[in-house]
Amino acid sequence: MKMKISLHIPSYLTVLTWFYCLLIGLVTGAVAFAVSVGVSSFFKGVWAAIVQDIFSEEPGGVGGLAWAYAKFAAANLALVLSGAVLVLAIAPVAAGSGIPNMYAYLNGIDIPDFLNMRTAVAKVPASVLVVSGGLAIGKEGPLLHIGSIIATWFGNTPLFTRMKEAKDKEPFAYEQHTRDLVLCGAAAGLAAGFKAPIGGVLFAMEMASRWRPELTWRCLFTTAATATVIRASTASLNSHFLLDKGGECKHKNCDILSYGSLLSFSVNFTNKTPFRETGLMIILGILGGLLGSLYTTLNTMMIGSKRWGYRNKTWARLLDIGAVSVLTSVLRIVLPWMGHCLPKKACDDCPSVAPGAAELQSFVNYGCDEDSYNDLAALMFNPQGFVAKMLFQEEMLRFTGTSLFIFTLFYYLMAVLAYGGPIPAGLFTPSLITGGALGQLFAWSVNKMFGMNLDLGLYAFLGAASLLGGMFRFAVSFCVVLVELFESDAQIPFLILVLVFAKGVGDRINQSILNHLCILLGLEYVGGHPDSTIRRKGFKAKDIAAKNIPKLHPMDSMENINKALDADEHGVFPIVRHTYLRGSSHSSAPVENFIGMVSREDLEQHLEKLQEEQEGEDSDPEAPTFLLSERLDASVDLTSLIQLPPVVLPPEMPLTTVFRLKNASGIEYLPVVGTHGPLQGLISRHELVDAQNKHVDPHNLQQRLDILT
Amino acid sequence: MKMKISLHIPSYLTVLTWFYCLLIGLVTGAVAFAVSVGVSSFFKGVWAAIVQDIFSEEPGGVGGLAWAYAKFAAANLALVLSGAVLVLAIAPVAAGSGIPNMYAYLNGIDIPDFLNMRTAVAKVPASVLVVSGGLAIGKEGPLLHIGSIIATWFGNTPLFTRMKEAKDKEPFAYEQHTRDLVLCGAAAGLAAGFKAPIGGVLFAMEMASRWRPELTWRCLFTTAATATVIRASTASLNSHFLLDKGGECKHKNCDILSYGSLLSFSVNFTNKTPFRETGLMIILGILGGLLGSLYTTLNTMMIGSKRWGYRNKTWARLLDIGAVSVLTSVLRIVLPWMGHCLPKKACDDCPSVAPGAAELQSFVNYGCDEDSYNDLAALMFNPQGFVAKMLFQEEMLRFTGTSLFIFTLFYYLMAVLAYGGPIPAGLFTPSLITGGALGQLFAWSVNKMFGMNLDLGLYAFLGAASLLGGMFRFAVSFCVVLVELFESDAQIPFLILVLVFAKGVGDRINQSILNHLCILLGLEYVGGHPDSTIRRKGFKAKDIAAKNIPKLHPMDSMENINKALDADEHGVFPIVRHTYLRGSSHSSAPVENFIGMVSREDLEQHLEKLQEEQEGEDSDPEAPTFLLSERLDASVDLTSLIQLPPVVLPPEMPLTTVFRLKNASGIEYLPVVGTHGPLQGLISRHELVDAQNKHVDPHNLQQRLDILT
Repeated sequence: MKMKISLHIPSYLTVLTWFYCLLIGLVTGAVAFAVSVGVSSFFKGVWAAIVQDIFSEEPGGVGGLAWAYAKFAAANLALVLSGAVLVLAIAPVAAGSGIPNMYAYLNGIDIPDFLNMRTAVAKVPASVLVVSGGLAIGKEGPLLHIGSIIATWFGNTPLFTRMKEAKDKEPFAYEQHTRDLVLCGAAAGLAAGFKAPIGGVLFAMEMASRWRPELTWRCLFTTAATATVIRASTASLNSHFLLDKGGECKHKNCDILSYGSLLSFSVNFTNKTPFRETGLMIILGILGGLLGSLYTTLNTMMIGSKRWGYRNKTWARLLDIGAVSVLTSVLRIVLPWMGHCLPKKACDDCPSVAPGAAELQSFVNYGCDEDSYNDLAALMFNPQGFVAKMLFQEEMLRFTGTSLFIFTLFYYLMAVLAYGGPIPAGLFTPSLITGGALGQLFAWSVNKMFGMNLDLGLYAFLGAASLLGGMFRFAVSFCVVLVELFESDAQIPFLILVLVFAKGVGDRINQSILNHLCILLGLEYVGGHPDSTIRRKGFKAKDIAAKNIPKLHPMDSMENINKALDADEHGVFPIVRHTYLRGSSHSSAPVENFIGMVSREDLEQHLEKLQEEQEGEDSDPEAPTFLLSERLDASVDLTSLIQLPPVVLPPEMPLTTVFRLKNASGIEYLPVVGTHGPLQGLISRHELVDAQNKHVDPHNLQQRLDILT
Repeated sequence: MKMKISLHIPSYLTVLTWFYCLLIGLVTGAVAFAVSVGVSSFFKGVWAAIVQDIFSEEPGGVGGLAWAYAKFAAANLALVLSGAVLVLAIAPVAAGSGIPNMYAYLNGIDIPDFLNMRTAVAKVPASVLVVSGGLAIGKEGPLLHIGSIIATWFGNTPLFTRMKEAKDKEPFAYEQHTRDLVLCGAAAGLAAGFKAPIGGVLFAMEMASRWRPELTWRCLFTTAATATVIRASTASLNSHFLLDKGGECKHKNCDILSYGSLLSFSVNFTNKTPFRETGLMIILGILGGLLGSLYTTLNTMMIGSKRWGYRNKTWARLLDIGAVSVLTSVLRIVLPWMGHCLPKKACDDCPSVAPGAAELQSFVNYGCDEDSYNDLAALMFNPQGFVAKMLFQEEMLRFTGTSLFIFTLFYYLMAVLAYGGPIPAGLFTPSLITGGALGQLFAWSVNKMFGMNLDLGLYAFLGAASLLGGMFRFAVSFCVVLVELFESDAQIPFLILVLVFAKGVGDRINQSILNHLCILLGLEYVGGHPDSTIRRKGFKAKDIAAKNIPKLHPMDSMENINKALDADEHGVFPIVRHTYLRGSSHSSAPVENFIGMVSREDLEQHLEKLQEEQEGEDSDPEAPTFLLSERLDASVDLTSLIQLPPVVLPPEMPLTTVFRLKNASGIEYLPVVGTHGPLQGLISRHELVDAQNKHVDPHNLQQRLDILT
């Protein structure tokens, strides 16, 4: 028995791609670590310089206290405004989280400047400034964007470009190699934000329109590199600068890293299998779904109305985000007066009351004495990471129901206001914190009303999941991100239950926030699975195909070409040839048989070349040259430009299949061709989005937006 | 501003599907729990009755010991043979893990009897018997199969069938609704086996050919129900029967559950961020990839040669698996003489030396005294769950290098021999245990050679991952399954690294074990992403389309129809109409324009109906009726049977796109139609598999198999 061993050698492009994935992972991890250290430094700076005055016993009388308040608000405002200025001055597309744009980009839409290195240059420091400025937004979404930009940079290196161009390419198809690389960058960015390498890959998977098994491996490899860099940097910073050999603090800033990041910490839930609470968890899931979809609606209204007003006026946008910053600061200062003084725990090894800062130990200026703390002030004045820790770990601090209610409402509304301004802004952190507070509030209320003993930390965790599910409608990735973030595997069934109900309720009310933002930003996202309405109504390809499109002949006159160029809306021209069927004998009109397509770009280049050749032929350079485009009778041979699109649709193809094929093939232009060859129309992204939005959108989102704008 | 609130009401089918998912999850969980209890009882029975004799100090001289050995081997043989008889008598398709068949089924292939309830009825007890019989196989794969069967049962209820038929259906497309449900069942089965609800969903995701976002939610919901049932059953069994209120044992079998299952236990790795060992981990990954792909090759050879010999002879198959069982038992008895006596730990609260059974405490018959244990005997005589626990938790037991080496080789080869017999057999457990032993052996060798201090448990964990990656070439699911199984989040980057290298090495050598088994079983699996060779060679649709297929006309003679039915290999007949183009003037042959397809099933039904009608028309029932099929001149109108396939391929479509479309659309027959309508051929699953296997298979698998069989 002879067995031939045949090793399969990978191509150069494959090897290069893997190498680039490694570099993307490493660089993204390094940038994320730098962002974390940056945010930490600013936070700690503001806390040390200003916040301690608010909490110290003698801020110098009422005037002194007012002065401390003013400094706090002013510092936050300065941080936020400098971030906004950076964005507006360098790269306006750096605003927002970048996730909706990525979602659209991975679908095949090109967005100018969105993935330029210039955008990252603005977004990294702006993100640091804005998050330090205490707005109710996060830095995880921006990290995903930054990771994608890093990947794009590698994807545009001449080496990679040359290699991928050598590969066979389908005409009119989406550019696979670069987008695959960008997907790995996005996964790395998210993995860096949440220290969740598997969660990052799954998020990229749920965000991507097209996925191949190889991508899973590449992205996993990338996020593993990212996670390794972050852990190694943290470990070496700790061991070389902050801690001595026994693990004790040797530097005054030895807790610096914990300021800037959502900490990953194990959550110890007291009651490991609370099956009897399943009903309560479902209610929490429904609540999260309602609030999540309401967030989407409110945010859509906010951004919609901003669009209407002063979209392109820089001063107005700065004023707007400045006002949000001042409002946030003022509420942070004022609201704690409605908090309650609760006794500090009397044990020695208890976690400190205000983990955020050693300075935040006395709550005397919020009416509490030495042995008690103001629960709302502890939530308001701590950095995000510590707030999350306080909410998810029951044993740390107790909060009263009213304080939780006020804080939930405060964070929720501030997040609605902040997202949409000219700042890098992630939505995960606000969802996590608001959801956590919501979950604790829910458990607190049930405990109070029915005398039960629900685990507050567990419900905070489930509340966070429910709000995330209600907003994003993603599933596996959030399960895994939360499990990786909190290192808590035991609660997975409950987590899934809550997510399923949150998503289910949300879907009954509106679309996910990503889809809303795509529509708001005018990005024509086409999903692979159209709404069930399309299936029910039984639409066919011929029903939505654009019929009134300019067609050309293989040999056409300049007049026709000019007309077509003017009338063009799609960027491609179908080429048809008149054919007479023998059966259809006399006088009947010829059939316009489809034979291929010419892209606008190719056509224009060709015309330019012809023009140049013509100019070259003119012997007398002084003689006035005729512009080719003005010689309407000239006949142009387009044969060399014609490309056959790899997919042609029969007119009777169900629209669901069209969506599926469009998504699977990534081909932008789908001609609809009848049984014997006649062109019946053209379907592009635009027609599909139209069909989805105008005719069958169950939530009438487009209609509502038209009212708003 | 008026906002219309429009709630989107789900359809009855959607509601029913979710309800069925809940039921599937609950039933699968209950069955999995029953299997676990069953395996536990048998294991414990054999251990209590027989194995203690082997280890007791006075088995009654040499004769008594031999008698104990014989009883051990005989008990195992009896268990294995009764399982095999059950399979062969009731449902031969219950053999194997069922995963390759599921892989093919989800791809669109129908396998007779594979998903009948009868198969589950055989597989559940057979799986219990065979795993208890000590073979080197697992019960997780069979659980996946059983979950799928449960789901199929629900999918075939009249209520569901009626509802799904009311939905629009594409002609010639794969049956989506049932397969979606089965996917959830498969996820539930795997989730039950590993107590990994997210891992189960991800495994289903990596196994499925087509995936829609809704499926993620449904499967997650299903696995959450499964996980809940299992936990609730375990908790209530413990609290009601086995443990008293203080958590103390009150029943003699209070550890019964731990016998039958792979335990989920937290692994505490001493060195949390061993970055400097990255190179070593990569070597381990490469090693796992080599051994994994070697396993696939060896197993292919085994099954291939079995096929050649006595495939359909029941006695031969029973003899074969009986021999494997006896060999396994004998090696389990004999090999420990090559083990080493290591001192037991002297502490009080140390875990017991042989966690599997209180009886397995003395190793006197393997040459060790009271204070020492035989390391190889401890590995050989413990149930699978405890072996895993010993390997992955460093602090439990120490093993010598030679013992680890012998055990690795033993388990690896026994797994090669056992898989392919007429028994339900999973491959996860052997991979996990063999990989664990391999990893410990690797770390032990490095520690010995270079005086390092590698964490043996961590390397066992990574070794398991590397072997799984090398065999199955799945990624995210194994990451998550291992993390869920061992509740260890911290090592994810290393886990990923090892998996990536194992898969990379394996892919250079052969295909995944699932693909091999599909080819061995003659299942024509078509992936969505053909091998890169196809891309490189630039194949087009027209290159592989079957051209010599019987065609019919809308109105055709009985003679032609009979000929077509005889010559048919595809089960469908393209319908063509002769057309003469005006341009192609005189004498030229007519073009065979494609106008639709007729399925063989429809055609035969139609002919039967015509025959009946004809018989009804004959006034004299005594007169000899002519069979329609014999009246060759009769003309049959097929117009009413013609269906337009939703997808038609242009001849120039690249083969990669064909694969992608086939996979995305799930449509079985793709006609290739030229620019002006002429039929150029037909592409079905068969042509694609042919192209993949014969022309461009880089590993020449088909060729090698042809040599073997």
